[in-house]
Amino acid sequence: MSRVKVLPPLVAGVAAALLLATGAQAAKMAPVPKLTKAEFTKAQHTYFDRCSGCHGALRQGATGPNITPAKTRLKTLKSLKNILYNGTDGGMPGWGKDGFMTHAEIDLMARYVQNTPPAPPEWGMKAIKKSWKVHVPVSKRPTRPPRRNWKNYFGVVERDAGNVVIIDGDTKEVLNVIKSGFAVHILRTSSTGRYMYAIGRDGKATMMDMWASPPNLVAEIKTGIDARSIDTSKFKGFEDSYAVVGNYWPPHYVIMKGDTLEPLKIVGTRGYTYDTNEYHPEPRVASIVASHNAPEWVLNLKETGVVLLVDYSKLSDGTITETKINAERFLHDGGWDSTKRYFLVAANARDTISVIDTVTRKLVKNIKVGTKPHPGRGANWVDPKYGRVWATVHLGEGLVSIISTDPSKPYAWTVVREWELGGNSLFIKTHPNSRYVYCDNTINPKKSNVLTIFDQKRPDADPVEITFKKKVVHMEFNKKGNEVWISLWDKAGEVVVIDDKTHKIKKRIKGLRMPTGKFNVYNTTHDIY
Amino acid sequence: MSRVKVLPPLVAGVAAALLLATGAQAAKMAPVPKLTKAEFTKAQHTYFDRCSGCHGALRQGATGPNITPAKTRLKTLKSLKNILYNGTDGGMPGWGKDGFMTHAEIDLMARYVQNTPPAPPEWGMKAIKKSWKVHVPVSKRPTRPPRRNWKNYFGVVERDAGNVVIIDGDTKEVLNVIKSGFAVHILRTSSTGRYMYAIGRDGKATMMDMWASPPNLVAEIKTGIDARSIDTSKFKGFEDSYAVVGNYWPPHYVIMKGDTLEPLKIVGTRGYTYDTNEYHPEPRVASIVASHNAPEWVLNLKETGVVLLVDYSKLSDGTITETKINAERFLHDGGWDSTKRYFLVAANARDTISVIDTVTRKLVKNIKVGTKPHPGRGANWVDPKYGRVWATVHLGEGLVSIISTDPSKPYAWTVVREWELGGNSLFIKTHPNSRYVYCDNTINPKKSNVLTIFDQKRPDADPVEITFKKKVVHMEFNKKGNEVWISLWDKAGEVVVIDDKTHKIKKRIKGLRMPTGKFNVYNTTHDIY
Repeated sequence: MSRVKVLPPLVAGVAAALLLATGAQAAKMAPVPKLTKAEFTKAQHTYFDRCSGCHGALRQGATGPNITPAKTRLKTLKSLKNILYNGTDGGMPGWGKDGFMTHAEIDLMARYVQNTPPAPPEWGMKAIKKSWKVHVPVSKRPTRPPRRNWKNYFGVVERDAGNVVIIDGDTKEVLNVIKSGFAVHILRTSSTGRYMYAIGRDGKATMMDMWASPPNLVAEIKTGIDARSIDTSKFKGFEDSYAVVGNYWPPHYVIMKGDTLEPLKIVGTRGYTYDTNEYHPEPRVASIVASHNAPEWVLNLKETGVVLLVDYSKLSDGTITETKINAERFLHDGGWDSTKRYFLVAANARDTISVIDTVTRKLVKNIKVGTKPHPGRGANWVDPKYGRVWATVHLGEGLVSIISTDPSKPYAWTVVREWELGGNSLFIKTHPNSRYVYCDNTINPKKSNVLTIFDQKRPDADPVEITFKKKVVHMEFNKKGNEVWISLWDKAGEVVVIDDKTHKIKKRIKGLRMPTGKFNVYNTTHDIY
Repeated sequence: MSRVKVLPPLVAGVAAALLLATGAQAAKMAPVPKLTKAEFTKAQHTYFDRCSGCHGALRQGATGPNITPAKTRLKTLKSLKNILYNGTDGGMPGWGKDGFMTHAEIDLMARYVQNTPPAPPEWGMKAIKKSWKVHVPVSKRPTRPPRRNWKNYFGVVERDAGNVVIIDGDTKEVLNVIKSGFAVHILRTSSTGRYMYAIGRDGKATMMDMWASPPNLVAEIKTGIDARSIDTSKFKGFEDSYAVVGNYWPPHYVIMKGDTLEPLKIVGTRGYTYDTNEYHPEPRVASIVASHNAPEWVLNLKETGVVLLVDYSKLSDGTITETKINAERFLHDGGWDSTKRYFLVAANARDTISVIDTVTRKLVKNIKVGTKPHPGRGANWVDPKYGRVWATVHLGEGLVSIISTDPSKPYAWTVVREWELGGNSLFIKTHPNSRYVYCDNTINPKKSNVLTIFDQKRPDADPVEITFKKKVVHMEFNKKGNEVWISLWDKAGEVVVIDDKTHKIKKRIKGLRMPTGKFNVYNTTHDIY
């Protein structure tokens, strides 16, 4: 272990304790505040936009604590408002302080969370089918790729505008701005890379054709009312046959035809926690990856801590096989090791990375890392001392945890290095052709405008920091791996292209509204990170 | 087809129509009747005992129609009371007419079903563990079998008394009366036959040791609050490792250690209908069999119409693999064909038998039969013209549907014969050493005391009928297959032992209270029916 980390106070624990209470305190419950119908509806929308991601639609807690009335009514409105305004060290944003909510909105939300959460509606095949639109039928799509170097296209998410901007990675030209769902969480590509799929937080999936000039929207569908993940079938013989969306609400996944998004099958995820075996009404599909070792998707269920291997090879009979592997609770995002055999997924509220072997189809290990790991898909490189490693950053502290992924090593699947980061972070990224590891510090207000760059070959050296005028979020490489693209997250945002070797700015792509994730066609197709 | 059946009027459809209505009628909704708290509690218990089996805990319908207030409030209290008193031709019992409910009780139930059904509680691992009792630890159990011919023991269910009576099939002596759950639905044995497992409708599973003298209760557990099915792991290498209970409420199955019933894992079944892909809150586990071709159980989910093949071979890692096969809605009970490769299961409200091939792991066919098939496990024999067949009786009409189970035949998986039965029936039974097929007529009030006997070798001949003084229900053979045991279903009931060849009564085992199912250790262990 090459560096001793300075652990911050047990912030997550403290934050959780703030909102939890014992039975003995039940007598002190605050009365249920009255809300007008209009207030309730407004609060419901704000809750969905800002709160449900971490606390759950039913408020039972996940990345954030349980905030059902049984917990919130043990607190005064004043203290709830204080938390809402200032946030907590455990990762709760300061919605007031950061300028996202007014005092009136904070007052409303404090009262809302002392009320019983409304049951969100179901969203079955009838509703899904009604939302399905094919804008360009298969027969009307190009039959050959464009002359441009389309495999180096980037999809850039304009989060709040509900757009995906397609940029030519060679020329840096904006080719098209394509309407997507609200606050797109990720983009994924088909196995060939031709199609790019976006999933909005509102459950709207969109499918874009990179062969069209300009790339265009060919199909869309709303598979649920809250979603985070999408992928396609990538195993030999099933290339692009199917797409799959994992929903937060309803707790289910929806399988569609890969070329049209026609919905074929819904599979529910409601079930029992892996450890305590108690029923959970809302096990959300947090992330999905397509296995390279079997005709399967790896689906990660947040609240129950179960990883599903979903075999789609018999879907023409209507049959799905689910292998349910116990991992750890509060699974969120993750990525492959460099061999694409092991999938590493964060169990964020348990400060754990769970490793799944997709060949033996087993949990390899639960590895303790820092507070609330958030790898995105993580980053793979070869450490000069420890060999093949994969790394994650953390929501809850400024730390990079570096894990050996070489099973032949005695220290395999342990944290072999820790790097201190200036601030709590969202993403980490590298590329096989790069010697650097890039981290943002987005959720630390004091360092959110800093990009931190570590040198793989000098792992004990201090990192380089580049300071921008705006919040830095999410990095992505171009196809060659000699440019890293970062987002400056602002209403007048931009994507800044940096030379990987010199760290000099090569290009600023301006006029983007709240740009967040960027996905290079080639790197996304081949899981290069 | 050797016999033309006379179809009764479309009774099931009429009965369903009685309680269904279109949106246009919504204006005519009756007011919600008031019930006192005591009345509500009483009605809730009666509903569980008498109604939920067919209509579901949430009243969404299955074998019986949907009876949520949206449907029941379209009817007058008077017409609801009439249905409750007289029953319907579609299979609804005449609770008043048959003496199970007083007029006051019928009035209460009519008002109750116009009220919103209370949500039944969850029942997770904490509750299950609390109910678990090992009465005789493994170390204190006999290490060798008794001198008696224990493989010819019978377990006889005393339904309303909540007992299982163990009878020596050779001597016809009652060896022990063992306390069980309420209204035990079935008995199953371990792969060796040593242990017998009972599942009560109240979700209580009990485990009895046939090697003890007398056989005794060694463990019990309450895995849910409403259950119908239990089985054990029978594949080579896993003999008696696990037991599994399938619950009606909560909709889940619970896997336990085979020798102690220690609960290990709960798996939920809430999910989507196979055909319309809409969420169902209550997909009940209707029946389970242990596969001989893989380390799997075949689990049948009623409301969603899905057959699960549950692989238990990786359970030591906590892993379960579920292959979800689309079959038909309203799956209930079923049994193996004589080769034990094909599982035939009734989709009763769809008048269908679904055939699952447990080797190719596919649905072979959905076969249309009569109104509401109810095979129990069915009956296998060799028809002189059609070869290997399996047959079912029906709740909704007096009919035996005989299906070819020989895949080499052009008429495989079709109904090759139909036999008229005097009355709507519950069970059918034969044995490889018998040339007869025995059917009860239990739910036809006019013929409920008649046992009908068909001759396999003269399939066109009229059946023999034996008339008793009391209701006849359920038949089971002894190990040799030369005696058939039937229950006379009465408070002063008895088991009557009939010589299979002569049809003469060999023995009357008296003093049994409401005896229903009987399970011979050897025949149950080896799936002989």
